[in-house]
Amino acid sequence: MERIDDLQLKGLSIIQDTELFCFGTDAVLLADFVRLKKNARVADLGTGTGILPLLLYGRREDISVQALELQEALCSLARRSVERNGLTDRIEIIHGDIREARRLLTGEFDAVVSNPPYEKENAGIGSKTESHRLARFEAAITFPALCASARALLRSGGRFTCIHRASRAAGLFAALRENRLEPKEVRFVHSFVDRPAAQVLISAVKDGSEGIEVLPPLVVYRGDGSETDEIRKIYHRDGI
Amino acid sequence: MERIDDLQLKGLSIIQDTELFCFGTDAVLLADFVRLKKNARVADLGTGTGILPLLLYGRREDISVQALELQEALCSLARRSVERNGLTDRIEIIHGDIREARRLLTGEFDAVVSNPPYEKENAGIGSKTESHRLARFEAAITFPALCASARALLRSGGRFTCIHRASRAAGLFAALRENRLEPKEVRFVHSFVDRPAAQVLISAVKDGSEGIEVLPPLVVYRGDGSETDEIRKIYHRDGI
Repeated sequence: MERIDDLQLKGLSIIQDTELFCFGTDAVLLADFVRLKKNARVADLGTGTGILPLLLYGRREDISVQALELQEALCSLARRSVERNGLTDRIEIIHGDIREARRLLTGEFDAVVSNPPYEKENAGIGSKTESHRLARFEAAITFPALCASARALLRSGGRFTCIHRASRAAGLFAALRENRLEPKEVRFVHSFVDRPAAQVLISAVKDGSEGIEVLPPLVVYRGDGSETDEIRKIYHRDGI
Repeated sequence: MERIDDLQLKGLSIIQDTELFCFGTDAVLLADFVRLKKNARVADLGTGTGILPLLLYGRREDISVQALELQEALCSLARRSVERNGLTDRIEIIHGDIREARRLLTGEFDAVVSNPPYEKENAGIGSKTESHRLARFEAAITFPALCASARALLRSGGRFTCIHRASRAAGLFAALRENRLEPKEVRFVHSFVDRPAAQVLISAVKDGSEGIEVLPPLVVYRGDGSETDEIRKIYHRDGI
């Protein structure tokens, strides 16, 4: 069933289908973490419903985004969301495989973003639908293959920014560096300050020098279970 | 000038020389982070004043430690500290180069620990003394070479635990994995919860499977500048 959600950001809205993969918290945290320069050309690899381009446009209206998605049904939803928001001149949704991104997208990019599948192909079974399986498991794209495509799209000095499972951090860093995408900033997301990290936000620079800044932890909940001020701000709650 | 410091731990004390490299906070954080099994055989690579063997013995009296140190003057101090504490049957201080650890130490180890030099050889000049230079810069031992020695000493499944500069995390993970020391637990040390991490504590398992637990951040100070409860506990202050 389709539904339309208000993104609580400059009047933007998004169309989703409850039978298909819907965006989650991770996309919102990632959009907040991405650095955007003026007039930046941005590529989103595996855009799903098109949530990242919309949230990034909400932060900077001078960017332009090419967004790739493998699932035809999600592409169709994403295109309709772009039209609905009147952003066809800013956001282009392209149907295709991330492994062919260099052929499918145009020119050099200042930034590549991605909220990729988190789980190894063999890590689980029983996804709700094929759409969920493709979005959650590395069936269609592995992280090293994603890095290779990001590298091919970026200008030297451009940034690849992604979110992933914290438990895979060592392997993620290795894959990034093998593609000469040097991790420069990293932020771990902890549900509570005294719990292990669940996700990691990574910003890597193409051809960057060695040296990473491990930013303050991003903590989601206070001890009493209420959201931290930073999370409330990221979600634009109560106009914080 | 020599001085004797009480370690506030089971009556243990340590001899240091203010002209030579003296131990710092990092050694205390590392000692607390190391996991020790019953009767563990432990190797300490670059023991300096012998601080880590003493602190580890303070936590578990059934361990035995072989500790390697390149600087003859520090070896001499460390040996005298071991004698002073009556621990010559538990802690052996060996003079030599970490790169030759496999030849200099005896048998397989359950745990290897190290508080190595943090800075690249070309990263700075003007150390107070040659002793400080060797302890702080990778003149005598690089991190990849340290990993190779740790791997050579450990039994399969044994742990290499170290502390290092957080900004080098990506390169550290890479060097560990190249030596099939899989990072399994990592903890970032932040002076304040809203500041970037300064150090990283890493525990890697020889021949371990992929998958890292990013532990809760270790925060040193509260907003008001006083030490956090966890730091007070690590330092055994006020009997916490």
